[in-house]
Amino acid sequence: MKCTVGVDIGGTDIKLGKFYGDELVKEMRIKTNKADKGKYILDDVFKAIDELLEKDELEGIGLGIPGPVVDGHILGCENLGWGRFDITSIIKAKYPKVKIKVLNDANAATIGEWAYGGGKKYSSFVLVTLGTGVGGGVMVGNHLVEGVSGSAGEIGHLKVNIGNVRKCACGLFDCLEQYASATGVVITANELRIGRNTKINDYSDEEITSKLVFDLAKEGDEVALEVVDEMIHKLALGLSIVSSVINPEAFVIGGGVSKAGQFLIDKLEKKFYSYAFYTIENTDFKLAELGNKAGIYGASYAVRHQEV
Amino acid sequence: MKCTVGVDIGGTDIKLGKFYGDELVKEMRIKTNKADKGKYILDDVFKAIDELLEKDELEGIGLGIPGPVVDGHILGCENLGWGRFDITSIIKAKYPKVKIKVLNDANAATIGEWAYGGGKKYSSFVLVTLGTGVGGGVMVGNHLVEGVSGSAGEIGHLKVNIGNVRKCACGLFDCLEQYASATGVVITANELRIGRNTKINDYSDEEITSKLVFDLAKEGDEVALEVVDEMIHKLALGLSIVSSVINPEAFVIGGGVSKAGQFLIDKLEKKFYSYAFYTIENTDFKLAELGNKAGIYGASYAVRHQEV
Repeated sequence: MKCTVGVDIGGTDIKLGKFYGDELVKEMRIKTNKADKGKYILDDVFKAIDELLEKDELEGIGLGIPGPVVDGHILGCENLGWGRFDITSIIKAKYPKVKIKVLNDANAATIGEWAYGGGKKYSSFVLVTLGTGVGGGVMVGNHLVEGVSGSAGEIGHLKVNIGNVRKCACGLFDCLEQYASATGVVITANELRIGRNTKINDYSDEEITSKLVFDLAKEGDEVALEVVDEMIHKLALGLSIVSSVINPEAFVIGGGVSKAGQFLIDKLEKKFYSYAFYTIENTDFKLAELGNKAGIYGASYAVRHQEV
Repeated sequence: MKCTVGVDIGGTDIKLGKFYGDELVKEMRIKTNKADKGKYILDDVFKAIDELLEKDELEGIGLGIPGPVVDGHILGCENLGWGRFDITSIIKAKYPKVKIKVLNDANAATIGEWAYGGGKKYSSFVLVTLGTGVGGGVMVGNHLVEGVSGSAGEIGHLKVNIGNVRKCACGLFDCLEQYASATGVVITANELRIGRNTKINDYSDEEITSKLVFDLAKEGDEVALEVVDEMIHKLALGLSIVSSVINPEAFVIGGGVSKAGQFLIDKLEKKFYSYAFYTIENTDFKLAELGNKAGIYGASYAVRHQEV
C-alpha cells in the first residue's frame, strides 16, 4: 500500500511512524547516535524507514528536528551536533521520487495537534509544551508560522521576570521555561519548601518532581499549591503576552506537566484573564491529545498537505 | 473617475482620502463629534464622503476605527462611545453598491505601511507606533492578523516589568506603552532628572516632551541618554518577545517618537539582539514612511484587495 513516514528526531531517540493516509499503522523507535557531530543520524533514519516500509510504497517523508528550520533548510541544531545545511536535498538524493517535508519538531507537533488533536477545530492556536523545557508552535489562519529564522513559537523564551533572577540554558535570564517547565516547578519547589510545613519535605531531592508537586497540590498541600500558583502565574503572564501579539483562538497545552490535566487548565484560564488586555476574550484552553506521537502525526500530515 | 475612499476615525478628528487606484488625490479632515455616544459620527463620515466624491464614482470605502474589529464587526470602541455592532451592514445600507472594509485603525495603518511604506518588501512584519500610547499591527504571510477578538498587535500592552510599577490606562500594570510611548519617556525623564545635572532641568514641566529628551540625548546630555536607554531597553525587550512568538522579518517603527529617526533605530536594533533568543537573526528595523496618512492609505488598499 501507499504510505508516508513521519519521523521525529530527538536528542535521545528517534521516533518513526508509518501512515496509511491519516492512520498510524506501525511505529518504531531507535537511539539517536550523536557521535561525530551527528553524521550517522540520517543514515540510521534511512535504514529505519526502509525497515518500516516492508512491502509498502513510500510516497512521502515528513521529518521533525530539534532546531530552527526555514523552508526545509536547517539553520543549526546544536542538540544533534548539526550545523546549517539543506537537509531536504540530502533526503531527496536518497529518495528521489518521494515528497519530503522537514520541520522544526515543535512545529511538527503543532501540526499534529491541529490536524488530529487538541487544536483540531482552530484556525489559529498556539501549542505550548511543558516538559523539561517549554516549547511551542504557532498556527495562524490554518498556516504554520515558522518565522524568518525559524524561531516563531519559542514560547519558552518569553521573558516573564526582571532582574536576572533565573538563568536559562539559552544564555539569557528569566525565560518562561525557567518557571513553567517541569524543571522550573522543581526549582520553585526547592525555594519555597525550605523551613516550611509541607509534605514536599517528606521526599528526597531525587523524588521531588513536577508531578509530585502537582499531586500534593491536588491533595491540598499549601506549599505545593503555592508552587503551582507561581508556575501558573508566570505561564498565564507569558500566554497573555502571546495573546497581545496574535490573539489566537486557543492555547493547547501539552508535555509531561500537562498530565496535571484539567486542574492545571482551570487555574491557567482563570489567571490568564487577570493579565490579558481587556479586549481579549473567547480564548480557549485545551489539553493536547497526542502525547509524544504529535510529532510523527504532524510530520506525516505536513508531507501530505504541503500547503499547511 | 472610479475611486475609493479611505477613512481613519480617531478620537479627535476623522481623516478621509480619495484615491484613484493607489494614488491619493484629495484629503479631508473633520472633527469627531462624540456627543450622544458617537451617534452622529457615521452620518458625518457619509456627508464628508459625498462631498469628497465630487463627480467621481465610488467603488469602495475602507474605514479604520480605534477599537477591536473582527470580520468587519466592531467589538466595542470606548473612545468613540460605541458598543458592539455590525458597522459594515450599516455602511452597506447607505452605499449598497459599494465594497466596504472595516478595520481596526492600527491594522489599517499596518496595511498602509505594508502596501506603500516602510513594510513594503516584507511578507511578515510588525508595525509599532510610538505615540501618546504604543500601538501596532501584525502581518504574517502577507495577511493581516486580526485575532479572534480583534486584539492581535496590541504591542503596547506587553508586560515589560514586574511588580506593578507603572499603572496603565488599560487597568493593568507595567505595559510597554508606559515606558516606550511619548508619555512613558516623559515619566522616565521626570524620574531620572531629579537632583541631576541635566539640561532637562532647564525646561518647565510643560516643555519636557519626548522630542526634547531625544534632542538633548543626541546632543550628549547624560541624563537624557539614560532616559532614552531605558525606553530602548523596554522596547527592545518587548520586541524580542514578539520575535519569540512570530519571528517576523521586520519591525517598522512609526508614531511621533519615531521622528527621532535612525538614532532610535540603531539603538533599538543593537539592544534587541541582546534580548533575543539565540536563533533569532536577520530581523530588520525600519522607520515607517506614511506618517498619519498610513490609515487612509491602508483602509483604501484593503477595500480594493479584500484578500489581505
